Amino acid sequence: MKRSFLDDNFLLHSETAERLYFDYAKDLPIIDYHNHLSPQKIRTDDQFENITQAWLYGDHYKWKAMRASGVDESYCTGDRSDVEKFEKWAETVPYTLRNPLYHWTHLELKRYFGVDELLSPATAASIYRTCNEQLQTKDNSVNGLLQKMNVELLCTTDDPLDSLEYHSSVGEEQPKFGTMLPAFRPDKFIFIQHQQFSDYLTKLGELTDVEINSYDQLLKALEVRAAFFVSKGCKVSDHGLEYVCADTFTTQEVAEIFQKALSGKVISPDEASKYMSSILLDLGKMYHQLGWVQQFHLGAQRNNNIRMMRTLGPDTGWDSIGDWSQARSLSTYLAKLDEENRLAKTVIYNINPSDNEVMATMIGNFNDGSVKGKLQFGSGWWFLDQKDGMEKQINALSNMGLVSCFIGMLTDSRSFLSFPRHEYFRRILCNIFGAEIDKGELPNDLEWTGKIVSDICYHNVKAYLQV
Amino acid sequence: MKRSFLDDNFLLHSETAERLYFDYAKDLPIIDYHNHLSPQKIRTDDQFENITQAWLYGDHYKWKAMRASGVDESYCTGDRSDVEKFEKWAETVPYTLRNPLYHWTHLELKRYFGVDELLSPATAASIYRTCNEQLQTKDNSVNGLLQKMNVELLCTTDDPLDSLEYHSSVGEEQPKFGTMLPAFRPDKFIFIQHQQFSDYLTKLGELTDVEINSYDQLLKALEVRAAFFVSKGCKVSDHGLEYVCADTFTTQEVAEIFQKALSGKVISPDEASKYMSSILLDLGKMYHQLGWVQQFHLGAQRNNNIRMMRTLGPDTGWDSIGDWSQARSLSTYLAKLDEENRLAKTVIYNINPSDNEVMATMIGNFNDGSVKGKLQFGSGWWFLDQKDGMEKQINALSNMGLVSCFIGMLTDSRSFLSFPRHEYFRRILCNIFGAEIDKGELPNDLEWTGKIVSDICYHNVKAYLQV
Amino acid sequence: MKRSFLDDNFLLHSETAERLYFDYAKDLPIIDYHNHLSPQKIRTDDQFENITQAWLYGDHYKWKAMRASGVDESYCTGDRSDVEKFEKWAETVPYTLRNPLYHWTHLELKRYFGVDELLSPATAASIYRTCNEQLQTKDNSVNGLLQKMNVELLCTTDDPLDSLEYHSSVGEEQPKFGTMLPAFRPDKFIFIQHQQFSDYLTKLGELTDVEINSYDQLLKALEVRAAFFVSKGCKVSDHGLEYVCADTFTTQEVAEIFQKALSGKVISPDEASKYMSSILLDLGKMYHQLGWVQQFHLGAQRNNNIRMMRTLGPDTGWDSIGDWSQARSLSTYLAKLDEENRLAKTVIYNINPSDNEVMATMIGNFNDGSVKGKLQFGSGWWFLDQKDGMEKQINALSNMGLVSCFIGMLTDSRSFLSFPRHEYFRRILCNIFGAEIDKGELPNDLEWTGKIVSDICYHNVKAYLQV
Repeated sequence: MKRSFLDDNFLLHSETAERLYFDYAKDLPIIDYHNHLSPQKIRTDDQFENITQAWLYGDHYKWKAMRASGVDESYCTGDRSDVEKFEKWAETVPYTLRNPLYHWTHLELKRYFGVDELLSPATAASIYRTCNEQLQTKDNSVNGLLQKMNVELLCTTDDPLDSLEYHSSVGEEQPKFGTMLPAFRPDKFIFIQHQQFSDYLTKLGELTDVEINSYDQLLKALEVRAAFFVSKGCKVSDHGLEYVCADTFTTQEVAEIFQKALSGKVISPDEASKYMSSILLDLGKMYHQLGWVQQFHLGAQRNNNIRMMRTLGPDTGWDSIGDWSQARSLSTYLAKLDEENRLAKTVIYNINPSDNEVMATMIGNFNDGSVKGKLQFGSGWWFLDQKDGMEKQINALSNMGLVSCFIGMLTDSRSFLSFPRHEYFRRILCNIFGAEIDKGELPNDLEWTGKIVSDICYHNVKAYLQV
Repeated sequence: MKRSFLDDNFLLHSETAERLYFDYAKDLPIIDYHNHLSPQKIRTDDQFENITQAWLYGDHYKWKAMRASGVDESYCTGDRSDVEKFEKWAETVPYTLRNPLYHWTHLELKRYFGVDELLSPATAASIYRTCNEQLQTKDNSVNGLLQKMNVELLCTTDDPLDSLEYHSSVGEEQPKFGTMLPAFRPDKFIFIQHQQFSDYLTKLGELTDVEINSYDQLLKALEVRAAFFVSKGCKVSDHGLEYVCADTFTTQEVAEIFQKALSGKVISPDEASKYMSSILLDLGKMYHQLGWVQQFHLGAQRNNNIRMMRTLGPDTGWDSIGDWSQARSLSTYLAKLDEENRLAKTVIYNINPSDNEVMATMIGNFNDGSVKGKLQFGSGWWFLDQKDGMEKQINALSNMGLVSCFIGMLTDSRSFLSFPRHEYFRRILCNIFGAEIDKGELPNDLEWTGKIVSDICYHNVKAYLQV
Repeated sequence: MKRSFLDDNFLLHSETAERLYFDYAKDLPIIDYHNHLSPQKIRTDDQFENITQAWLYGDHYKWKAMRASGVDESYCTGDRSDVEKFEKWAETVPYTLRNPLYHWTHLELKRYFGVDELLSPATAASIYRTCNEQLQTKDNSVNGLLQKMNVELLCTTDDPLDSLEYHSSVGEEQPKFGTMLPAFRPDKFIFIQHQQFSDYLTKLGELTDVEINSYDQLLKALEVRAAFFVSKGCKVSDHGLEYVCADTFTTQEVAEIFQKALSGKVISPDEASKYMSSILLDLGKMYHQLGWVQQFHLGAQRNNNIRMMRTLGPDTGWDSIGDWSQARSLSTYLAKLDEENRLAKTVIYNINPSDNEVMATMIGNFNDGSVKGKLQFGSGWWFLDQKDGMEKQINALSNMGLVSCFIGMLTDSRSFLSFPRHEYFRRILCNIFGAEIDKGELPNDLEWTGKIVSDICYHNVKAYLQV
């Protein structure tokens, strides 16, 4: 039997899968607990001028595909006009067959704009026109786009130095679409080797009225900011690391390393590692104290292209999958927090799928029965945010842990048009369960399986975040 | 077509697979060449009081699932009553969908007790009653349970200090079910950094009447114990290691390190590694001399949870998958033994599936034609003892070696109720072959494929162990 | 539905797959851009005496299988007669079920010799006779065999010291079958710790009339040889490395290390790593200057068996998959070349499938839009040259890059009978696309998908190599 591309039963390869998706998953609201959306755009409810601005600006996934197929940088990050950039993307799309971009692109055109045609040079002009027209309507403001996707709550990713001026304080009115919470991502105060580290300390000191002349004062200032984040409803923190540092250190050593950095001296890799081992522990204890969920995104090898890093800066598509050892140091870190019973709820995400099983079993080391799914093996992320990647994550988690306790999908995206990825995930999830029911590898109990599916898609994360 | 859960053709997704399983695999006896069963219970032919004792005591797989779903430790390893523990397990089971526990649980209930119902709070009481009643009958004594599963021979895992009082000497009467052999696992004399190392030496000295005042005397004492194991029919040794140590060392260095340890001094990691490199080589030569099979279980990261390790001790479910490099040192170790033509038949098991291909090709380095399948890539183990894990191991071995020479499945279990895992493995194996025949990727020759299947399930290991 | 083994639709599991293969892939010529064929045999258009010589001499894949199944070395590399060796191989083949050898063997018998029977002891004699007879005909000379497979162009792998006497100079007549180009593989001048390193320098000096008394003179001499390779039409280089070295070094350090090696002193691992880091960069720049494609085959752990290495030498089947870290140093190496805009078109091949995603994303770091598919994640290689391995490589590349830009398959083989591996690859590729079309995961556009397929099978590599 041949199926049509992207039909209603897209990715659902059995009636059982269809039943699970349509009856138990499709209509659930979205809790997107980690992304990189602009709080300002949400608060001011921006309208995009055109689909290039909504879709291609800042999307390094698309740029990477364009570059691979031989498209000049001027069409990606350069000074070509919006229509030229869109046309180049339309030329590239037919060459992205089998890449998740191919599915995402057409799913997004369909769900947001009702466009059923495939994007190509032949259809570019009309699709550009259609989307742009729609983007001018109030229904397709930033909040409109979120409402269309049934987003109930989302967590942005924010710097401790951020004013959070676009986030509502607890009790204040939320944006039109639903609830927007901040997340605490203190990279600036972890990467001690960064040349601006001492400048960041100065800014943090000013913002908090703490005189940051010691490591302890830094902690104090971060606590002040964390309390401010709490006042804005924050419930999660986030960290992007090559791997978790968990060296041995003494407080004396760390105090001295911090003084060196404060006075602008060069910090050696060993010193940095000791410092990071210390601050990550102290942050972890703070998160536990606050009842937050801590997230760790592990293993990305960033900014590989020196030439382009110089021209374009970070997050422009020159990152790849690293292959550091993760297991020992991650275990040590979590164990140290757990030993004092100060381990917060924790989500670990790996970018190298070869680490899936390390992660899926790591969480079992610290699930102590105190909270359902206290430790979470996070959903397929970044390069793994595609069908294979999701299936492998779901399978590893299922085989080595309890997928029933999983908090499910998040976009991790900078784009307001990326929310169909939740649909994508839900379809894949239902398809997996459906196939096994049909093969007699799971009982034919749609009600129970449907409950598990809906837990993974919505209820688990709601309970986990207590939102 | 929709199938019933756990029907007769469970995991067999084609008629060809069914034919292979029912005609060539199902009725073969089981040789379980590596497990952690209690020799005492077998010798004295214990009856279990209830299914909690048979099933939940000591089963860290089940505890891990309970903890992940938020069940308090008192129901796992704590002082709750047996019925309370069973009830909590029954509550947890429906949440283990897709975890191997879900399949194992229901397969075990069905095969040992004829229970066809799914375990859940609704069925817990009646299943508890049914199983407990049956466990009181003589047919369901420890030997009865083994006989029911058609176990012909099994190898326990034993300490050199063990009296082996429950194992029969060669020629003596075996337990009712069949043959029980010991296996030699000298962990205590390998992990030189263990705080009780010198105590173990004292005990070994007493047991063997060897004055262990040097490394060479240790070897001598271990030879004495190995000879005693031989008198009990032992044919295999076993080692659980993060990775095989294969440093360079001199006999002088090792002698000195040993003296340090003997006198209770602290051994550095480098010293430990040199010592272990030496003792593993000497043990390897001894195994070759004795005609034994040596086994290496590689890559588990144990006792990650410091807090629970303190409370509960090892083997209580706080272990996970490590990510050490394995290839170089394992090769060096095997090559050194092979160079002197003193490499015993060897089985290597990896716990990290990312190492599957390293292992599958490693065995090819030392298969020299002297014995069919001299080096073996061991069956999916521990966390990998599930459908995906087995399939990946079988596929890696098939792609990079000869699956036809494979010695197949073992339980590695502490539970007398875990033997349906052999059935599980056999079904998966037959399903793989059956699917490829039907797709025309293998010839439609059931007789030959059936022979290969039965070799893997039974005949290969029988020839390999010469039992 | 049950299919016959190796029928016309072998590996094609849908009509769509069949259409793609037969209409868009099957009849395309082969560009085999990397192999280890003998230029001499091609130039002199040898006839093989018998199939043992054509098929079993030098084929370590087959030897490995024989050794694993317990066949004595004398039948592999030893002094048994050709007919005895063939008989032993025929005995082994039925035990290679599921190994790629099983498919390759029968595909090769069928495509080259029209043999439809399965090879086994029962058929060995008649197949031996049939093949040997055919090998005597002019149609089955070395060039005949290549023509039969529609080989348009191939690249051998050659030493800078090689005379290239069997390769045609540009403009000269090519061998009967088509075009044969050399490839530049300067291993001898990279592995500075090799005991013959200074001898190689002497030979290179003689050959080029360059007095190699410094590192710079070595580069000069290599440039002379590269220019000679260009005169023979060379367009590619190749490197086989455990991992790419990318240490920091100064030119002064490298100059001194080179002097040490020149004077026959022992080079330490650290020194070797610095030297290799330097020479790889300088070679990379040279390749860029010449407009060549550079290839890196990464991660094989070679010559593991010390005993057999001593007896038989390298490349006799004692190699396996290593597990070194690849990501950081490979990135550093490519970034350094790219920083000066001197990064040649580059193909990276990994032997450990756990690195697939590292490689698939690594190429994205340096695809800058200047050339379609400038960086390539190379096809499944050596141990990965089988259905699973190919599928995983294709999937990783598809998920994380653009499979549409892929330059496809190569044999990497020493055997003139290995070219059906291109057919094998093409069938697998078409099957993947076909399955997704039928499932509605790709549009039902055979023309466009067919174009992508034919690009991958032929047109991409033709454009990439500019041949």
